[in-house]
Amino acid sequence: MPLINVAKHCDNVAKYLNSPGLIFVKGAEVSIHPDSDTELRFMQDSNMVYISGVLEPGFSFLYDTVTKKSTLLAPFITPDEAVWIGEQPSLAGLKASYGVDTVVYSDKLEEIISSIAPSKIYTLSYQDCSIIKKFSDLIDTEALLSAIHEARVFKEPEEVELMQIANNISGKVHTDLMNYSWTGKNERNVYSKFVGGILDGGCEREAYTTIVAAGTHPATLHYIKNDSKINSESDLVLVDAGGSYRGYAADITRTWPAGKTFTQPAREIYQIVLDMQKAVIENAKPHVLWEDMHLLANKVAIDGLVKLGILKGNLKEITDSFVIGYFFPHGLGHFLGIDTHDAGGYPKGVERINKPGIRYLRVRRELLEGMVLTVEPGIYFVDGLIKEAKGTPEVAKFVDFDKVEYYSRIGGVRIEDNILITANGNLNLTNVPKEIQDIEAIRCSQ
Amino acid sequence: MPLINVAKHCDNVAKYLNSPGLIFVKGAEVSIHPDSDTELRFMQDSNMVYISGVLEPGFSFLYDTVTKKSTLLAPFITPDEAVWIGEQPSLAGLKASYGVDTVVYSDKLEEIISSIAPSKIYTLSYQDCSIIKKFSDLIDTEALLSAIHEARVFKEPEEVELMQIANNISGKVHTDLMNYSWTGKNERNVYSKFVGGILDGGCEREAYTTIVAAGTHPATLHYIKNDSKINSESDLVLVDAGGSYRGYAADITRTWPAGKTFTQPAREIYQIVLDMQKAVIENAKPHVLWEDMHLLANKVAIDGLVKLGILKGNLKEITDSFVIGYFFPHGLGHFLGIDTHDAGGYPKGVERINKPGIRYLRVRRELLEGMVLTVEPGIYFVDGLIKEAKGTPEVAKFVDFDKVEYYSRIGGVRIEDNILITANGNLNLTNVPKEIQDIEAIRCSQ
Repeated sequence: MPLINVAKHCDNVAKYLNSPGLIFVKGAEVSIHPDSDTELRFMQDSNMVYISGVLEPGFSFLYDTVTKKSTLLAPFITPDEAVWIGEQPSLAGLKASYGVDTVVYSDKLEEIISSIAPSKIYTLSYQDCSIIKKFSDLIDTEALLSAIHEARVFKEPEEVELMQIANNISGKVHTDLMNYSWTGKNERNVYSKFVGGILDGGCEREAYTTIVAAGTHPATLHYIKNDSKINSESDLVLVDAGGSYRGYAADITRTWPAGKTFTQPAREIYQIVLDMQKAVIENAKPHVLWEDMHLLANKVAIDGLVKLGILKGNLKEITDSFVIGYFFPHGLGHFLGIDTHDAGGYPKGVERINKPGIRYLRVRRELLEGMVLTVEPGIYFVDGLIKEAKGTPEVAKFVDFDKVEYYSRIGGVRIEDNILITANGNLNLTNVPKEIQDIEAIRCSQ
Repeated sequence: MPLINVAKHCDNVAKYLNSPGLIFVKGAEVSIHPDSDTELRFMQDSNMVYISGVLEPGFSFLYDTVTKKSTLLAPFITPDEAVWIGEQPSLAGLKASYGVDTVVYSDKLEEIISSIAPSKIYTLSYQDCSIIKKFSDLIDTEALLSAIHEARVFKEPEEVELMQIANNISGKVHTDLMNYSWTGKNERNVYSKFVGGILDGGCEREAYTTIVAAGTHPATLHYIKNDSKINSESDLVLVDAGGSYRGYAADITRTWPAGKTFTQPAREIYQIVLDMQKAVIENAKPHVLWEDMHLLANKVAIDGLVKLGILKGNLKEITDSFVIGYFFPHGLGHFLGIDTHDAGGYPKGVERINKPGIRYLRVRRELLEGMVLTVEPGIYFVDGLIKEAKGTPEVAKFVDFDKVEYYSRIGGVRIEDNILITANGNLNLTNVPKEIQDIEAIRCSQ
């Protein structure tokens, strides 16, 4: 059975195109490291994954929106090449495994296009389409990209299934790591265990560059060095990592103590982040605006930080000042799919909200059934931002910097699940312990 | 202590340049997957690794062959960026860790070049050097590449040390895998264990795309799918895999039985390949030609295959026919260093030898002290090549195809070590069991 419902995906794209035509998408080739012959592990073009399901190099793809017929163009592998990379499947075999209407060798491209005689050819502006320059009068390089992007926003059932598998594989490794990342180990040991684990489980690669951050490293939002020792039982370990399964990503973050239990300051901050996440998951459903979910997370964070005495003053003024953006300095979450930061977050004409934290929000639109998003609130103590807050009177007045100092040793906490928006609410695809008592039970089990 | 002796490396390069000048090498930037913001794990430009030792993105490098002074140009990281990727080390910190004479921010590039006032600027033709277009009259894009390539051929002691570490880490995982890859497991399980193991040991990445080939898959020379079950105790498992440690590669292959012991046909072929490898390692030393080592491996293979009855006829005629290239269809080995297939294998004007097998040899030159090479003979039963041999009367007459049929079920055997050419012979950097009894002892230990 083909993994991707090619006909449905093509149809989804076609409905966002204004006039009939022939869609042409070029799959990626193997990349070579410069001035060497070192092949990089192949990564298919994301839009090619969506429209064709093909995960191998050297293919391209045609879809005629008039006849609704798809054609896959396969690379021809010479007998000499076959000695090195193996015999290619037959054209019939490719047709069956990809579920397309026709498969031919790439050298038939011009012939096929001529026989279809399209009124228009839709291509992707960022791709080199010189191989069809013969038809340059017909080419529209604009409409296709946003059509595929919009189609990718709404996940088909089989896409959700792949993302669920990616989540299950990745989530299992996260859970295993909770009972592995003891003090004395290096972040690298945890990282290697994650990568080994997801490959072992069937993922083809990390969906994005894994973050393993111990001590104060969680305060570097995209910390990817992963090379320091886990020093102290009072440290936190933050792991932001997900595998890609047949082209679809998981994106999961957990934060847990390096010791058997959370320290008091870590526990307090952790609980606030968990409350932020739960509030959002409780409220995310069709017709809610994603920026309102970010603001809801802000609200829970402010309440929590006021209770701890880190923030002080009038609640409305605190909120309006966006001082919370100095502690929660990134967006609440993003679309997830073939890309980790998946396409379609900002419809044409929608601008970013230029306020601390929320300016990094990668999605600003109404939630609708079929969207998959990450919910990843966090609270961090970033030196640079604390310094900046101190120097910004409009926000400094709301902050107790002595309290900040006390908490800052924990670096930061982030908790991230992946949710599918359903008809009436959402479905959480991520199944990894996140309650304090559950994490401590794992940490204490050894 | 800086890991790379920058001054020595620069000097090595300068001595291959005919006239004085300023060397300019641009380090790589982080690559982004097309139409997404997915960052690929950073991989430094290989020539930048050699000349500067820098393994981080965004740097560039100057070396004045007149004053023998090096200047590292560091990217400036804004406070906003630092929130995401961390604070940058100070310029003084960078100077100490890279062992260069001067470190400045990249925006000083023109100023520095102007103050040096070089008579010539050597750059690399494959790099985009538009940032120094102001000096285009001075630029020579030709001489530097071959100078760095030639310098890279002769490894400095600290380079050998890094390669020894890469070998030790990778070799340990190979040895572990021998007691892990039992029938019922998938090639993917073995692959994941390799990747996890080398990252755990301190390597930053696979040096090249790992091959885990069970059953008849070894007969696909660059089999990288790694997704089939290890089916039978009579199968062989071939693992061709190495890690990169601080920019330097290991490249190791071992082949072992999926059962506790080798089957009879596997044992016979394995012993021939081992004999090929040992003969080469016994004879590889300064002033020997590498193509003669390939021919020596051919000779041992021919003797072995004649003894098994796979080849038949007059020994000289068999040799001259290069029929052995149908069973040993790749080169004996290649330079190894920063790149897995390292630079400098063919001096200007030297052509490939257009005969089966040896035409793929990646090095044709006199061995000299300081070179590091892989020694990786193999014997394979590749369907396509056997068919081709059958259809080629000049070679078919030397082959007993019934015998071939009997052995072909084993797929193939390759054994690969990494050697350093020393003053009087060579030093084997690879320490992984390869004798039949040692491998079987590991396989039987459980």
